[in-house]
Amino acid sequence: MVSNPQAPTTDESSNRTVTVPLGDRSYPIRITSACICGQEGRGADVGILTDAAADVTHWVLIVDEAVSNRWATPIGKALDSIGDTVRVNVIEVPSGETSKSVESIGGIWNQMLNLGTDRRSVVVAVGGGVVGDLAGFAAATFARGVRFVQVPTTLLAMVDSSVGGKTGINLPGAKNMVGAFWQPEAVWIDTDVLATLPDRTYRSGLGEVVKYGVIDDAKFFDWLVDNADGLVRRDADALRYAIAASCESKARVVGADERETSGRRAILNYGHTFAHAIEATTGYGTWLHGEAVAIGMQMAARLAIRIGMCDADLLKRQSDLLAACQLPTTMDTADIDAMLTVMQRDKKVAHGKLRFILPSRIGHVDLVSDIDRNDVIASIEQTIGKA
Amino acid sequence: MVSNPQAPTTDESSNRTVTVPLGDRSYPIRITSACICGQEGRGADVGILTDAAADVTHWVLIVDEAVSNRWATPIGKALDSIGDTVRVNVIEVPSGETSKSVESIGGIWNQMLNLGTDRRSVVVAVGGGVVGDLAGFAAATFARGVRFVQVPTTLLAMVDSSVGGKTGINLPGAKNMVGAFWQPEAVWIDTDVLATLPDRTYRSGLGEVVKYGVIDDAKFFDWLVDNADGLVRRDADALRYAIAASCESKARVVGADERETSGRRAILNYGHTFAHAIEATTGYGTWLHGEAVAIGMQMAARLAIRIGMCDADLLKRQSDLLAACQLPTTMDTADIDAMLTVMQRDKKVAHGKLRFILPSRIGHVDLVSDIDRNDVIASIEQTIGKA
Ligand SMILES: NC(=O)c1ccc[n+]([C@@H]2O[C@H](COP(=O)([O-])OP(=O)(O)OC[C@H]3O[C@@H](n4cnc5c(N)ncnc54)[C@H](O)[C@@H]3O)[C@@H](O)[C@H]2O)c1
Ligand SMILES: NC(=O)c1ccc[n+]([C@@H]2O[C@H](COP(=O)([O-])OP(=O)(O)OC[C@H]3O[C@@H](n4cnc5c(N)ncnc54)[C@H](O)[C@@H]3O)[C@@H](O)[C@H]2O)c1
Ligand SMILES: [Zn+2]
Ligand SMILES: [Zn+2]
Repeated sequence: MVSNPQAPTTDESSNRTVTVPLGDRSYPIRITSACICGQEGRGADVGILTDAAADVTHWVLIVDEAVSNRWATPIGKALDSIGDTVRVNVIEVPSGETSKSVESIGGIWNQMLNLGTDRRSVVVAVGGGVVGDLAGFAAATFARGVRFVQVPTTLLAMVDSSVGGKTGINLPGAKNMVGAFWQPEAVWIDTDVLATLPDRTYRSGLGEVVKYGVIDDAKFFDWLVDNADGLVRRDADALRYAIAASCESKARVVGADERETSGRRAILNYGHTFAHAIEATTGYGTWLHGEAVAIGMQMAARLAIRIGMCDADLLKRQSDLLAACQLPTTMDTADIDAMLTVMQRDKKVAHGKLRFILPSRIGHVDLVSDIDRNDVIASIEQTIGKA
Repeated sequence: MVSNPQAPTTDESSNRTVTVPLGDRSYPIRITSACICGQEGRGADVGILTDAAADVTHWVLIVDEAVSNRWATPIGKALDSIGDTVRVNVIEVPSGETSKSVESIGGIWNQMLNLGTDRRSVVVAVGGGVVGDLAGFAAATFARGVRFVQVPTTLLAMVDSSVGGKTGINLPGAKNMVGAFWQPEAVWIDTDVLATLPDRTYRSGLGEVVKYGVIDDAKFFDWLVDNADGLVRRDADALRYAIAASCESKARVVGADERETSGRRAILNYGHTFAHAIEATTGYGTWLHGEAVAIGMQMAARLAIRIGMCDADLLKRQSDLLAACQLPTTMDTADIDAMLTVMQRDKKVAHGKLRFILPSRIGHVDLVSDIDRNDVIASIEQTIGKA
């Protein structure tokens, strides 16, 4: 739970830190504003990076080409100016999901080799979830593991993919099929980088933010209701608070189930069984991930109501908040048979029975097995074509 | 230390088990004879595999094509006959170091996907160090980690590469540059498979066996002196004992330094700084790895004598044992300048100063820094052209 739910101040102390509690692999998430572009002509303040790892002789920035000039270059320059004992290299990666491939990891490994990467190097991922997953996997496997820092540049990467240590690439037809658990030394989130993010991509990230309110943190949900406008406007203070609260929730869940063995991590999949089915059956890209999650949470809430697990008020409150975040809460049509086929294949299906993460109240979800197929169909139908 | 240094018996109880002590990642190394080919017409006794992992629905054998028919097929058949609830697939890999490449790991990942590999699958590596490293890396990374069992088929893989959890592949010009630490559920060593191993490859593995005697286990060294003939003849009883003692030594070192962070694991590199320089400067393949290690240990022993760390008797005893194992103790010529260049690049060099693992007595080595270049040169020269 976030300790200070009041509107944050704008001075230095408004920077926030969340700790991911993983024993000797614990690490800080530092949430700042105006530190990458620098204030008053100063360069980037890379203290968060240099504090994160001792005895560094070499920084390898792995960078989404879309953010390279504007956001990675100042970081590289500031690291370079530390002195002659430190080398800085930049590896640019084309934007988009296709960069999470066997070919691109092969290319990155070879570039890291040619750049003389070793145990005293640190990989810095500058980009969204794609670059974070790819660079993290490169760090996990080069020389059997080098240190790693994340600088996420999308809202989704800030509140989701940068926390939890999952790294990896896709195989043809299978997302995230190859990878490793590899925790970073630190995550540095500067809200300024969101300035260049397209509207729809930005708002899609809010879908995951709302998710944390529903699954884990009723107080945060209330805060979101009061501050949705500020978030949509990308207000820096509101953003730092919302990002910190989201990371707190995810960090707590990950701390309890680092390697996805106890089942606790499954609660992060609220709305996602439906969302994956929506994404797969409408063709990836029709809905952005966070948009599909928004619609999927609506379906899940209706399913919970149908089986008597929560009341209709939860759906209304969730629906109002999603709308305030300018996220979709409905879709025009759905291929329900195709969606069911995808859901049967989903990891959340054990022995052919459908399992879902469903809310009992705002701030709490449970894993429910043995869900009747007809209830699933009805929940999808009720979510189609509604305003 | 091995508990029973007497000649082992040939009955059932002559099977040996060594435990690799790694907390909740601890695992057994089972050392048997006549269990893969089966006795009296029975098929392979795969109890060691089925005991190693619970709740298995799928075995994926990754197999060196050179051992496929003779040694992997009986294992696959026996696993297949367990029943309808279990699937068995075989992925064959071409023999040789080139299979430890980005291309082959990409191919294996895709095959694992097409075979429906998931968290209830177990990868079984059947082959030498090449297939063990490759299959281990595939297991470490597919679905962020699936279970893994090693069935090593070379003596080197039995006493070295199967123990310690290092997995990985090569990059062009850089051996083992990409990989992961990933411990198997179990290692199953059946000495019968050594029957098909070429003489030189077999004896090369004895180089690493002698190494354990020198670095860690004086009693084992004495046993080797008495039993070298039996080992050269590939006597099954002698082999099980020597393999168990070697694995005990390596397991103890690895248990104290699982991820190569404390420096303890470095003692396993006795003879290896010289050996890597010999291999690199003579062209890989001129000397087999274990042969280069034998010559390298001679150079290291001479270096230890030069700096007053041990007496000449150690060199004589090591030299006699290597000769009794029909391993080389000398080479005709050496490009000493080129060897020094390689050694400077070697990981064991800190800040340009040469560091070596050197013996103080049989059964004990230390890491020695700040070695004088001229002593290194003299130790190499003394090892050239000598009988
Ligand atoms: N590791 C995890 O736990 C985890 C969790 C969730 C998602 N993911 C992965 O994350 C990926 C999706 O992440 P994403 O939504 O960040 O996608 P992304 O990395 O593809 O970024 C989305 C788009 O925004 C662009 N972009 C990024 N930052 C920008 C900025 N500041 N200004 C302008 N444009 C910018 C990118 O070039 C890209 O075109 C998927 O591959 C998914 O599998 C991983
Ligand atoms: N992971 C580790 O800790 C570790 C330690 C040492 C070495 N290694 C790696 O191990 C590899 C070398 O291992 P290796 O010496 O076993 O090489 P290898 O796997 O290439 O096997 C040597 C040769 O013997 C053949 N062969 C294997 N078993 C046979 C059998 N029973 N009968 C007939 N032929 C057989 C193979 O086809 C190959 O041609 C290197 O890649 C090295 O990097 C890893
Ligand atoms: Zn998501
Ligand atoms: Zn070796």
